[in-house]
Amino acid sequence: MPASSASVTPSLSDAAVRLIAEIDTALDAFVAGLDLPPKLKAAAQHAVLAGGKRMRPLLVLQSCDAVGGSMADAMPAAIAIELVHAFSLVHDDLPALDNDLVRRGKPTVHVAYGEAMAILAGDVLLSIAIESAAASPREPIAIVRELAHATTRMVDGQVLDTLGGFSECGSSDEAKLHRIHERKTGALIVASCRMGALAGGATAEQLAALDRWGHCMGLMFQIVDDILDETQSAEHVGKAVGKDRDAGKLTFPGVYGLEASRQKVRDLDRDAAEALRPFGERARHLNDVAHFLATRTR
Amino acid sequence: MPASSASVTPSLSDAAVRLIAEIDTALDAFVAGLDLPPKLKAAAQHAVLAGGKRMRPLLVLQSCDAVGGSMADAMPAAIAIELVHAFSLVHDDLPALDNDLVRRGKPTVHVAYGEAMAILAGDVLLSIAIESAAASPREPIAIVRELAHATTRMVDGQVLDTLGGFSECGSSDEAKLHRIHERKTGALIVASCRMGALAGGATAEQLAALDRWGHCMGLMFQIVDDILDETQSAEHVGKAVGKDRDAGKLTFPGVYGLEASRQKVRDLDRDAAEALRPFGERARHLNDVAHFLATRTR
Repeated sequence: MPASSASVTPSLSDAAVRLIAEIDTALDAFVAGLDLPPKLKAAAQHAVLAGGKRMRPLLVLQSCDAVGGSMADAMPAAIAIELVHAFSLVHDDLPALDNDLVRRGKPTVHVAYGEAMAILAGDVLLSIAIESAAASPREPIAIVRELAHATTRMVDGQVLDTLGGFSECGSSDEAKLHRIHERKTGALIVASCRMGALAGGATAEQLAALDRWGHCMGLMFQIVDDILDETQSAEHVGKAVGKDRDAGKLTFPGVYGLEASRQKVRDLDRDAAEALRPFGERARHLNDVAHFLATRTR
Repeated sequence: MPASSASVTPSLSDAAVRLIAEIDTALDAFVAGLDLPPKLKAAAQHAVLAGGKRMRPLLVLQSCDAVGGSMADAMPAAIAIELVHAFSLVHDDLPALDNDLVRRGKPTVHVAYGEAMAILAGDVLLSIAIESAAASPREPIAIVRELAHATTRMVDGQVLDTLGGFSECGSSDEAKLHRIHERKTGALIVASCRMGALAGGATAEQLAALDRWGHCMGLMFQIVDDILDETQSAEHVGKAVGKDRDAGKLTFPGVYGLEASRQKVRDLDRDAAEALRPFGERARHLNDVAHFLATRTR
C-alpha cells in the first residue's frame, strides 16, 4: 500500500513494504528482459503494472521466509504468481467477460492495445509465468504443478462466477459462493503460500500448516473484498462500488449478511493465527499480513 | 489421416495411424477426467476434437521411440502439446483475431459456446497442458520448460503474423516470414521432438539431432501448408483456400514463388533425413512422417 493511504487504511509493515519494492524491481526486470515483439511486451508490462498490491508474491516470499528459505529461492515463484494474476485480470477485463475499461486508474489492456493484443498478452503472461516458476532454484517441478493446478482452478472459478453453470448440481447459494471463491480467489492465494513453502524447503508439516493458513487468507481476502464493495466509497476501495452485487453475483454480505460476514473475518483471523503457532517468531511477517487483510474492513 | 482420404493424399504408415488412435484415446480420457464445470469441459472437449491430425503428439511419441523410450514415458507430453495446439486454435479463431467460424467442418468454440467461454476454455487448455507435461514420468521439469518456452514463442509469432509490429526493425519480407514461422508454427513442432526425446531419456547428441530434424519439419510443414493454400481446392485442404494470401499475410510462395518453395521442401526433406542418419533403423517412423509431410504438396 502506498504511504499516502495510511490515514484511511491500515498499512503493511515496513518489512512488507520493502519486500514489495523488491518484487516490483524483479518483476520489471523479468518482463523487460523478455524477447518479445515490442508491442506485445508493452501490453504485458501495462498488465503487470496494473496488477496492484502484490499480495500474492508477498505471500510467496514471506511463506518461504517462514520456513527458513531465502528471497532468491522464492523470487521466481513470486514473479510467476503475479504474472498469473495479471493474466487473469487482462482476460477477465475483456469485453466478452467483465468489460472493464479502467483498472487502478488506467485503461485496461484491451482499451490501450486492442482486444486481439489483450487476448495474446494474457496468453503470453501465463506461459512466461510457467517459465519463471520452472526456473525456481529448489523444487521447480512441485512449484510448477502448484501453479498450473491453481490456474486451472482459478479459471474454473471464473467460469462459475461469470457464466454460471451450476444448474446441473442444484447447489445452495452458500455452497456456490464457497465453491466460486475457493477457486477464483482462493486457489492462487493458497498456491502462493504453498509455492513459497516449497521454494524454501518446507517439511510436510510446515507445508500443511501454510496450506491451512492460505485457505484462511483466501477466504478472508474475498469476504473483506465483498464487505468493502458493500460499505465503502469508491475513493477508498479504488474501484467501482456495489458492482458485484448489482451484477447479481453472489457475495458474502449478500448471502450471510454484513454482521455475520464481519464475524467470519474475525474467526478466520483467529484460525489463521492458530495455523501459524508452530512457526513462532518466524511467522511474524505472515501474522502482519493477516492482520492487515483482516482490518481492511474498518 | 482418415482412411477415406487415402486416394487423394499420401497416407501415414499403419504404425502412425495406430499411434494416433492411442493418442486420441488418451486425450479423450485425460479431458473427460478433469474436474471442471460441465460447460467448460464440453468447450475444452470440443476444442480438442477439432484439433485434427495429431501431428505434434505423434512427433512426441515417435521422437521418444527413436531414442528408445516407451509410449508411457511420452504420453503426458504428447497430450500436453496437443492441448497447447488446441488452446492456440481456440484463441486464434476468436472474432478479435482471425474470426473463423468453422474448423474441420464444425463451428469454432466461440460460435458453439460463446466468446467468454472460448477465452476461458483456451486458458484452461493451456493450464491443463502444463499439468499434463508436469506429470511426465521422466525429466518433467525439462519437458515443462520446453513446452512453456515454445508457447511463449508461438504467441510471439502469432502477434507478428496477425498484428504486425515489425515496423521497429525494418526487416525484409524474407526475414519476417522466417521469424513468424519459426515461432508461430515451428516452435511447437521443434518442442514436440525435444519433449519426446527428453521423455525417452535422450543423450545430448540425440536431443540435438532431433532438434535439427524438428526445425526441418516445422519449416517444411509451413511451406507445404502455404503451397496447399495456394494451389489446391478447398475440398482437398479441408479449409478455405487462398485465405492467407488474400489477408495480406506473408507466405512462402508469395515471397519466393511456387517452384522455389517446392525446391525448398525437397531440400528440407533431404536435410531431415541427414539429421536422422545416426538413429539408423530406429528413425524409420520419423522418416515416414517426414516423407508424409513432404509429399502433401502433390
